[in-house]
Amino acid sequence: MLTLYSFGPGANSLKPMLALYEKGLEFKIVRLNPARFEHHEDWFKAINPNGQVPALVDADKVITESTVICEYLEDEYPTEVKLRPDDSYGRAQMRVWTKWVDEYFCWCVSTIGWERMISRMARAIGDEEFEERVKRIPIPEQQTKWRNARAGFPQAVLDEEMRKIGVSVRRLEARLAESEWLAGDMYTLADICNFAIANGMQFGFPEIVNEAETPGLMRWLARINDRPATKMMFAEVPFEFRRDKEPA
Amino acid sequence: MLTLYSFGPGANSLKPMLALYEKGLEFKIVRLNPARFEHHEDWFKAINPNGQVPALVDADKVITESTVICEYLEDEYPTEVKLRPDDSYGRAQMRVWTKWVDEYFCWCVSTIGWERMISRMARAIGDEEFEERVKRIPIPEQQTKWRNARAGFPQAVLDEEMRKIGVSVRRLEARLAESEWLAGDMYTLADICNFAIANGMQFGFPEIVNEAETPGLMRWLARINDRPATKMMFAEVPFEFRRDKEPA
Repeated sequence: MLTLYSFGPGANSLKPMLALYEKGLEFKIVRLNPARFEHHEDWFKAINPNGQVPALVDADKVITESTVICEYLEDEYPTEVKLRPDDSYGRAQMRVWTKWVDEYFCWCVSTIGWERMISRMARAIGDEEFEERVKRIPIPEQQTKWRNARAGFPQAVLDEEMRKIGVSVRRLEARLAESEWLAGDMYTLADICNFAIANGMQFGFPEIVNEAETPGLMRWLARINDRPATKMMFAEVPFEFRRDKEPA
Repeated sequence: MLTLYSFGPGANSLKPMLALYEKGLEFKIVRLNPARFEHHEDWFKAINPNGQVPALVDADKVITESTVICEYLEDEYPTEVKLRPDDSYGRAQMRVWTKWVDEYFCWCVSTIGWERMISRMARAIGDEEFEERVKRIPIPEQQTKWRNARAGFPQAVLDEEMRKIGVSVRRLEARLAESEWLAGDMYTLADICNFAIANGMQFGFPEIVNEAETPGLMRWLARINDRPATKMMFAEVPFEFRRDKEPA
């Protein structure tokens, strides 16, 4: 039995979740509540000492890191639905895209997302409780990120991240203007892992991601949102965050 | 015929080079001279538009990104020597380590390396020529890195990178104190990709990497340096940088 420890269907949590839905595998989701810092509680750190979701438990094995989990599912469960090309060059192209999202694209979008959404959550907590919670975070860089979110990220950081978001969106558009999918001519983990970060930008960054300026990216977002697996995932697994209300 | 466009056997260039030597594949190396910014020349940007080495050319295909190239070699050339576990969980463990070196470990070591070695190179160039060269760099973040190297990285940046180097070395030691290899019980791309960054730290960072404090890491470095493939690589492919003289 596969168990996915996860937040809602966004960002890194979305990657293995959507892969599992696409592959039609049976699995259980254990939702953690980021607003309660559940991923930093001892019971979860016994599963992933880094205190990070997603984590996949497959019988007695724990697999961490969203992109690694996605490739694990392809390796271990060769279902009829394949999310990775069969040929070596296709796989390499796919991995250039999954690597890029993990090393570049996800970080700039994440900082702006934290500034807009996590900041409110971090500020709603009293000083003492905040310090208690930060102490439980195993990764020092994540502690710093929580502190920055609470204090507000410096404007120079936000400006630089917005510049990188622009670079990222132009890179995606350049590829998607001429190709249906990111790697080769099939739907792969390259699409799923980039969709995990890009989906929602048409609402959160409408001045950058829109029909006029990024028609290829918009079509690709619509195409993925239209897939039965994506629809089923969004119907079955609720988000934590809504644009029109406070975090749950 | 495989052609590897590469710097000398260190950092990211070492990864696919050592994998090729280990696998005993026939290949040609085209050495680029970083001191002459050859990787930013038009002829090379026609091969890799990012202007980055290593890049592998396999017949009519170009594969970029050192870690991606390593996995490509495993996918495309299933030699007797295997550098990737056969089982899915082993592969996942290996990928957690190759991902970590690309996202965390390589960056902190790289900054200190640039401060120590590239700075001199960048300062030896006249203002006008420096600007000309920087203009030819396709990736904006790389342009910034060259400018920082020339001006000297801010002390706060160097301090933070040294902190991360400490975290990295402790992480490697914790694993290597109890295991011969990083992922599972075989020599894999996890070892090669981390060795690419860690080798030389026993000389460049002797106050952190030494027999007393990191015996597991020291044994692992010696073990890899002792492999026939590693020895052959270092014998056949010269370094650009020596600790006792100026860059070539």
